[in-house]
Amino acid sequence: MPQFADRVAKAQRSFIREILKVTADPSVISFAGGLPNPASFPVPEIAAAASKVLYESGPSALQYSTTEGYKPLREWIARRYQEKKGMDVNPEDILITTGSQQALDLVAKILVNAGDTVVMEKPGYLGAIQAFTIFRPQWRSVPLENDGPDLAALEKAVDGAKLFYAVTSFQNPSGLSYSEEKRAKVAEILSRNEIFFLEDDPYGELRFKGRALPPVYKQRPEHSMLLGTFSKVAAPGFRLGWIVARGEIMERLVIAKQAADLHTGSLDQMIVHQFLADNDFEAHVARISQLYGDQCRAMQAAIARHFPKNVHVTDPDGGMFLWVTLPEGMSATELLKRSVACKVAFVPGAAFFVDGTGENTLRLNYSNADAATIEEGIKRLAACLDGCMQGAGACKG
Amino acid sequence: MPQFADRVAKAQRSFIREILKVTADPSVISFAGGLPNPASFPVPEIAAAASKVLYESGPSALQYSTTEGYKPLREWIARRYQEKKGMDVNPEDILITTGSQQALDLVAKILVNAGDTVVMEKPGYLGAIQAFTIFRPQWRSVPLENDGPDLAALEKAVDGAKLFYAVTSFQNPSGLSYSEEKRAKVAEILSRNEIFFLEDDPYGELRFKGRALPPVYKQRPEHSMLLGTFSKVAAPGFRLGWIVARGEIMERLVIAKQAADLHTGSLDQMIVHQFLADNDFEAHVARISQLYGDQCRAMQAAIARHFPKNVHVTDPDGGMFLWVTLPEGMSATELLKRSVACKVAFVPGAAFFVDGTGENTLRLNYSNADAATIEEGIKRLAACLDGCMQGAGACKG
Repeated sequence: MPQFADRVAKAQRSFIREILKVTADPSVISFAGGLPNPASFPVPEIAAAASKVLYESGPSALQYSTTEGYKPLREWIARRYQEKKGMDVNPEDILITTGSQQALDLVAKILVNAGDTVVMEKPGYLGAIQAFTIFRPQWRSVPLENDGPDLAALEKAVDGAKLFYAVTSFQNPSGLSYSEEKRAKVAEILSRNEIFFLEDDPYGELRFKGRALPPVYKQRPEHSMLLGTFSKVAAPGFRLGWIVARGEIMERLVIAKQAADLHTGSLDQMIVHQFLADNDFEAHVARISQLYGDQCRAMQAAIARHFPKNVHVTDPDGGMFLWVTLPEGMSATELLKRSVACKVAFVPGAAFFVDGTGENTLRLNYSNADAATIEEGIKRLAACLDGCMQGAGACKG
Repeated sequence: MPQFADRVAKAQRSFIREILKVTADPSVISFAGGLPNPASFPVPEIAAAASKVLYESGPSALQYSTTEGYKPLREWIARRYQEKKGMDVNPEDILITTGSQQALDLVAKILVNAGDTVVMEKPGYLGAIQAFTIFRPQWRSVPLENDGPDLAALEKAVDGAKLFYAVTSFQNPSGLSYSEEKRAKVAEILSRNEIFFLEDDPYGELRFKGRALPPVYKQRPEHSMLLGTFSKVAAPGFRLGWIVARGEIMERLVIAKQAADLHTGSLDQMIVHQFLADNDFEAHVARISQLYGDQCRAMQAAIARHFPKNVHVTDPDGGMFLWVTLPEGMSATELLKRSVACKVAFVPGAAFFVDGTGENTLRLNYSNADAATIEEGIKRLAACLDGCMQGAGACKG
């Protein structure tokens, strides 16, 4: 057995992906995954696009291509930022990545020395915790409020830090979003402290309430990177994401990407570009958002009917998740053991905290179940919760 | 501007990929790339497979999937090792990667601390140099002879090292292969010194001369990893490679892969699996090997006709490359400057050496040009060589 590198000596498999294996049992209702609803996948349109690409441009779709990505796709992404959000983004500011998970790996790789301080939200996105942890940062985290981060805590946390990482719209896991006011204040705090910002925006298109807000990136593009993905608005199986960045940062990212996988799949990029060119993307996104809005309201209504009143749940304007806070002292990990026996699953919240707290929190996904399934699953979960609260302390943390 | 991590502070773009940009000019004959011949891509078969997958299994082809990879594809790969090479490889020993470049990144990530010694061939594969260099190893290199590494040099180099990396069949850049005898001796030396082996085998299927030999991996699977890819036998645009590894090593690789990109594209994996299931893969591989054999012989014949006699060229049994050694004191980098003006390109060899030598070497790719183009390109290159040798020292290193 070789001696492993220090960076993976204590690494563990994603708890969430292990839970997903349990939920392969079809009798289990799962609110655990972060899966888009396959009913939202534009399968016939993708099949038509794949056929067109292969018959018209087969050899180039199957050949090696540039590290930066397929140029027409980069142009489409840049144009959309310009037209929808009034942002100054050019095609050469876009690097196509193998899902936005790869973007997290590349950013961590080019920026983080062991011991560097990285600031994230509390709770924060697990995929980012995993990608960064490989490069052994020192973590600090800033509590999320209903309208964005606790600003005083942010001001304190960024002191001496290298980077602030945040999901500013419909966050995973909390569903919370930064208000217009907080976006401005976050930009101001980061600028004053000369802190680089990594803004992750996988869910921003999936708004079903309220008014669209541009990414914080728009306010200081020279000192930010912005991540996007087609996983939630086309399909995740393509593994197509991107980084928006400029100048020397983009140069380092391209070098790191060359070493990481040369380039992202040519065929995938060309199929998705063809799909975008031949279909009404705005209407497609609107349909997904409406579907998820309906399912979110169904879950909120079921929770209101069935959950004990001392359980707190967020009220998102978009995205795929509700965030549940149980009374102090309760353990969502213990609740999961009980709920799996009742055939309903979720993700205990502790994995989303870099400071070891969050034991009384959990994440519920509503994107991947219809209203009837949501009602039944929440009813089962409520029964487990009741059992925990009245039982012999089995759900104490 | 943020402070970059030490691991990329001195990183540079791949010289080869920069050369490839020069060769985008269609009037330039390029022997520079490592591109498979697009004429070998099974475009109609891939189009049929894509259509079948999307119409029959669209939602699952477009959804997130497991980190380890698409199970039927892993089963196909394992079965082929068993049946063709008599190797003890099971589906759970296979991790699907985003091209075998990603395999190099993952292996380096889980094994290499800054300062660890990694041994490679001289010349050695540039993509591996790039992937490993990010993790800042100390390099040692072992000269390649016509039948494999210099064994005395290998014995010395592996002392205290963590890993030996090698391309054992039709190596990139040299075209050289390990003989049966050297395979056994390499395994013996590595076992005696308790050195882990990373064996890269992207070209092994592309044999056009001689008798197939199993990977060295077969002799000590517990202490090796073996890399494979569909890039040279199906198409590189899919970005589909794999790692064969066992036990705790596989466990760490899966964890690193989760953090790196969650999983490799679902649709790509399913399309390639469908292509393999519906077509005669052996016949397909035989056609590619014959094509490359013909082109290799065309290039060797052109070289025999046109090159000065004091230039040495390898005689590969398969793969995609010839390796040229110019007389001592000549510089292939200087030759390239001259040859680009004559509209013919290649890759100077120095990039394949981790010890700063190799200035008088160069790599010629024959897979991606037909016989007439090869003849014309070699004629042009020979004229540049003559000019260099007779000229005012413009090609001195």
